[in-house]
Amino acid sequence: MTQQRIVDISIDCDRCIGTIVRFISHYFSCTRAKTAVLGLSGGVDSSTVVYLAERALGKDHAIGLIMPYRTSSRQSIEDATMVVSKLGIRAEKVDISALVDGYFKRDTGASHLRRGNKMARERMSILYDYASKFDGIVLGTGNKSELMVGYFTKYGDGGCDLLPLGGLYKTQVWEVARRLGVPKRIITKPPSADLWMDQFDEDEIGVSYSVLDQVLYLLVDKKMSVDAVAKKGFGLQTVRRIARMIESSRHKRSTPPFPKSTDSFK
Amino acid sequence: MTQQRIVDISIDCDRCIGTIVRFISHYFSCTRAKTAVLGLSGGVDSSTVVYLAERALGKDHAIGLIMPYRTSSRQSIEDATMVVSKLGIRAEKVDISALVDGYFKRDTGASHLRRGNKMARERMSILYDYASKFDGIVLGTGNKSELMVGYFTKYGDGGCDLLPLGGLYKTQVWEVARRLGVPKRIITKPPSADLWMDQFDEDEIGVSYSVLDQVLYLLVDKKMSVDAVAKKGFGLQTVRRIARMIESSRHKRSTPPFPKSTDSFK
Repeated sequence: MTQQRIVDISIDCDRCIGTIVRFISHYFSCTRAKTAVLGLSGGVDSSTVVYLAERALGKDHAIGLIMPYRTSSRQSIEDATMVVSKLGIRAEKVDISALVDGYFKRDTGASHLRRGNKMARERMSILYDYASKFDGIVLGTGNKSELMVGYFTKYGDGGCDLLPLGGLYKTQVWEVARRLGVPKRIITKPPSADLWMDQFDEDEIGVSYSVLDQVLYLLVDKKMSVDAVAKKGFGLQTVRRIARMIESSRHKRSTPPFPKSTDSFK
Repeated sequence: MTQQRIVDISIDCDRCIGTIVRFISHYFSCTRAKTAVLGLSGGVDSSTVVYLAERALGKDHAIGLIMPYRTSSRQSIEDATMVVSKLGIRAEKVDISALVDGYFKRDTGASHLRRGNKMARERMSILYDYASKFDGIVLGTGNKSELMVGYFTKYGDGGCDLLPLGGLYKTQVWEVARRLGVPKRIITKPPSADLWMDQFDEDEIGVSYSVLDQVLYLLVDKKMSVDAVAKKGFGLQTVRRIARMIESSRHKRSTPPFPKSTDSFK
């Protein structure tokens, strides 16, 4: 894929790592939680978060859960396991196949999407159960690219206590991962939510992360209009579609709305 | 229980009902969703929400899910069923016992709290699956009293798309329920999350809703200090404890925090 590079969104990795590590430490000292709990998928986001958590809290204060479903790729599990042994953190494996399939027994024709969302929510629920058991806090592994276009399950992988990578676009996560020494094969494999076979982020989102991140940067951080971003050299249809994704996923980045104020009912 | 009445927080029920009904209609017309999906526990909150949803959308556009666990009281299920037949909405029953127990097979010593949280999250996950199947939106049934003291499961019953009662304290929900014609026995029974036997809200929160709501109103809506509220005639320890609950549950009312801004990493 051509890596169209129109805007430079590269970051100062060391500064960024320092900021995130301090952010995690600070949150833990404020809440007096003892353990970071997070799901390890073998992907670059969760691997990066656990490297950062280990730096912030030490290896005895992070628990990684590997939660495969029966269609999860073997490489995902191997890669997650590799990260665990490299860092020496505590890890447990919880197979979610029976839990998810148990629910869909009543509705065997359920779509990929429904099954994928159920898996993501099951994992969230398990992470919080471990957090409850170990006096912990759930670290989310989402990044800014996913957040802004809504490429996550509401109250599934989107359900967490803090988001160390929430300020970093995916291409920036790759940079940080390299600097942290995350194993190369985790960084170079094509990004996938791994909820079903041959699912790849860039196919689903319909654009490469390289283009997505630059367009998001201009739309979101630089507050540029769709037309202005397109004039920089991106396809107008692509920019429009990304702008629509930002808009239609707004509810996933907000707490549920309600008619406000008791006084106004008087 | 003495219903200490120091501040009048009663509301104009008709105006309030009108506002909430318009709020629901408006949200649905904006999102083009067709169906309101909500869990019916037989309690006053979910009963009130489904009455409001039926007014806003009509009986063919609401699906109520009754999701008992094996310890759920029989009265809860009966009361939920009564609401369904009164309104003539579509309803389904999904027993969550096997789903929850399937998970805790690995950890039979798990506490009430862990089991209760798992149940709440399982229900959220099922509601969203139905929403996905029926092009729907999940209506939350939380009220302002619960929200402000964090008396709900994060990403469990707290996980929803909109919160019709989010601006109403519990004692105000009772008023609205009466005006809507919610069956009396639902309004008068002691409030319970019904996650385990003999669980009652007011025991768990440690104060009656009457006192809680007045104190919350003064602390939250009137932005009064703890001392000033106590001087109005409430016990200082009670007010302090409520203020601490507001503070410590802040994370449950916010989206997950992250170190902000891409530019700041440059």
